[in-house]
Amino acid sequence: MNSELCRRLGIEFPLFAFSHCRDVVAAVSRAGGMGVFGAVKYTPDELRRELAWIDAHCDGKPYGVDLIVPNAMAGKGMALDDDALAAMLPEPQRAFVERLLAQGGLPAADLDQDRRAALRAARNMSEAGAAEMLEVAFSFPIRLIANALGAPPAAMIEMARARGVPVAALVGAREHALAQIAAGVDILVAAGAEAGGHCGEVPTMVLVPEVVEVAGDVPVLAAGGIVTGRQMAAAMAMGAAGAWCGSVWLTTAEAEPPEPIKRKLLAAGSRDTVRARSRTGKPSRQLRSAWTDAWEGPDAPPPLPMPLQSLLTEPALARVEKLAAAGHPGAERLATYWVGQGVGLMRAAGSAAAVVQEFKTDFLAAYERLSRLLEE
Amino acid sequence: MNSELCRRLGIEFPLFAFSHCRDVVAAVSRAGGMGVFGAVKYTPDELRRELAWIDAHCDGKPYGVDLIVPNAMAGKGMALDDDALAAMLPEPQRAFVERLLAQGGLPAADLDQDRRAALRAARNMSEAGAAEMLEVAFSFPIRLIANALGAPPAAMIEMARARGVPVAALVGAREHALAQIAAGVDILVAAGAEAGGHCGEVPTMVLVPEVVEVAGDVPVLAAGGIVTGRQMAAAMAMGAAGAWCGSVWLTTAEAEPPEPIKRKLLAAGSRDTVRARSRTGKPSRQLRSAWTDAWEGPDAPPPLPMPLQSLLTEPALARVEKLAAAGHPGAERLATYWVGQGVGLMRAAGSAAAVVQEFKTDFLAAYERLSRLLEE
Repeated sequence: MNSELCRRLGIEFPLFAFSHCRDVVAAVSRAGGMGVFGAVKYTPDELRRELAWIDAHCDGKPYGVDLIVPNAMAGKGMALDDDALAAMLPEPQRAFVERLLAQGGLPAADLDQDRRAALRAARNMSEAGAAEMLEVAFSFPIRLIANALGAPPAAMIEMARARGVPVAALVGAREHALAQIAAGVDILVAAGAEAGGHCGEVPTMVLVPEVVEVAGDVPVLAAGGIVTGRQMAAAMAMGAAGAWCGSVWLTTAEAEPPEPIKRKLLAAGSRDTVRARSRTGKPSRQLRSAWTDAWEGPDAPPPLPMPLQSLLTEPALARVEKLAAAGHPGAERLATYWVGQGVGLMRAAGSAAAVVQEFKTDFLAAYERLSRLLEE
Repeated sequence: MNSELCRRLGIEFPLFAFSHCRDVVAAVSRAGGMGVFGAVKYTPDELRRELAWIDAHCDGKPYGVDLIVPNAMAGKGMALDDDALAAMLPEPQRAFVERLLAQGGLPAADLDQDRRAALRAARNMSEAGAAEMLEVAFSFPIRLIANALGAPPAAMIEMARARGVPVAALVGAREHALAQIAAGVDILVAAGAEAGGHCGEVPTMVLVPEVVEVAGDVPVLAAGGIVTGRQMAAAMAMGAAGAWCGSVWLTTAEAEPPEPIKRKLLAAGSRDTVRARSRTGKPSRQLRSAWTDAWEGPDAPPPLPMPLQSLLTEPALARVEKLAAAGHPGAERLATYWVGQGVGLMRAAGSAAAVVQEFKTDFLAAYERLSRLLEE
């Protein structure tokens, strides 16, 4: 595609694949898009191993890394001591989670032992943790570093600038875009309310032109609900420089969700997601399930602030996912997944490369549709 | 524009202006789009007068009429007796509304006497009332009849078919589209969650391709958040046959809102709307104000079912609007208006014809943006 952004990043087609799965990242980069590895749940050593694999499987094509350094936490010097944090989980919330598991016929004991993964994500979101992750990321020839949840810390922007790596940041409102530009980011990802994971209140159709309007020369990628090339063309007609997609890769052959969850995603409609604080403490969009229904119910305790809510929920949801993968019916009912409202349009059970190819074909068809309308 | 729908309706540019203001309807039709007159708040006699005016000011260009016949009410033979209905308003809800007015420094007595307009809208939404309105509408050479809130009754479709007038219907979900097609509608209006007034949960970026996918030969107009030509181009790239807009006309010189409300709309951002049941009993999107904040607050009583909630709120809001127009500060704070999230992009204080012209220019610019991206 004839675009400044494609030239700058060395890619052919400005489709960005945010994924926690290295196979998807490498496949999309090889297919002409850009894979961006979501690193927050890994240790620095694991990240090194994953990036080494991606680097070896990208055929020299560009790839990126995404971290989460929330604005509200960065720089607060929060000491994340495992035992101290776990002790901060109040009894009503603990009991609610245990009851949910028990009602689904899942073992509810010993969740404390499983909090390690959640603690790791929390630590990666602290300043010290993020610095370690950044060092690992920049030890590879990455071509993009992205940050969600607020303006990236100055140290991140300086490290990136010194290495000539563009910094991307997610925004959910026009005001956030202005703050990110002031902080010096190179690429904005305007993520609409229909996006999976953490999301704002303004849908993509409104947010993209709003952010483009204030972005000046800073390229804007459109995110939220985009799972087809026609939607990508729509976003680019409104001035976006490309599309940033997460959900659409989840059902591909390479992707990490267990088969029963992939089946749930392929069966879901666009009204089968819920935007709630019950997973992390901040509003995030996920697949509706017995788990999310319970948290929306009248008996549910209020969600805890970040990072405590994740510390509460992630060990339980990890258990749910593991048992759902093994065919446990109660676990299948409880199983949820971060996914956007575009899930209602998701049909792809093939390869990630095939999805990229479909995007290209569909993008062209959308353009030709407009061309025909404007014929004399 | 070279489109089947434009040929069928005899219009030049598939931009539909839903408006309660006859001046906007006529201006948009004259400018090459299609004005659609929102008739629900008028008596049959008033509707006759308004349509006669529109017919005389359209220069022979096509225009349409929009009614609301909710699926849940049509055919139930609900007898709407003024006193009986007013007596159904519970004391806590009445007292809450009176307190809100009093807190804003507005007179709070004698609201019962002002319920006539709200009762009229309720009556127009009943089967007998709608039949009377349909007869008036079809006594004019209208080129489109539209219905919101559920599948149109068979009688409406038969009357329209006998006169060769296409029937349009609003849908907020893929499932509604299937029901409307089965009922025999000719045009679907896919209204995203960002739309003003009654709206669903699925945003335009997802809903439009979802509805297009199941619509077959039935043309789909995109609604919800669209206030610029670039968004119209985006929707049409996704397969929409045109755009159906309501909010964008509200701030034009011709439009009906009082100046202080127009100023509030021009100043509002895309996060300054709220989707709530507190106006009509069904979820509708409106400008956030002291009124909507109070209804979202912890002391608010639950909203009543349709049509009772409108009967409760409309007389009070009519008083608020009248006093806001006169510069009453408490009324200006309370004043709200049905508007979509596109309000954050609305800048137009000029004529409705100028808005149509800007849409055309902006549509072309969006197309050219895509063309440049695809140049070799």
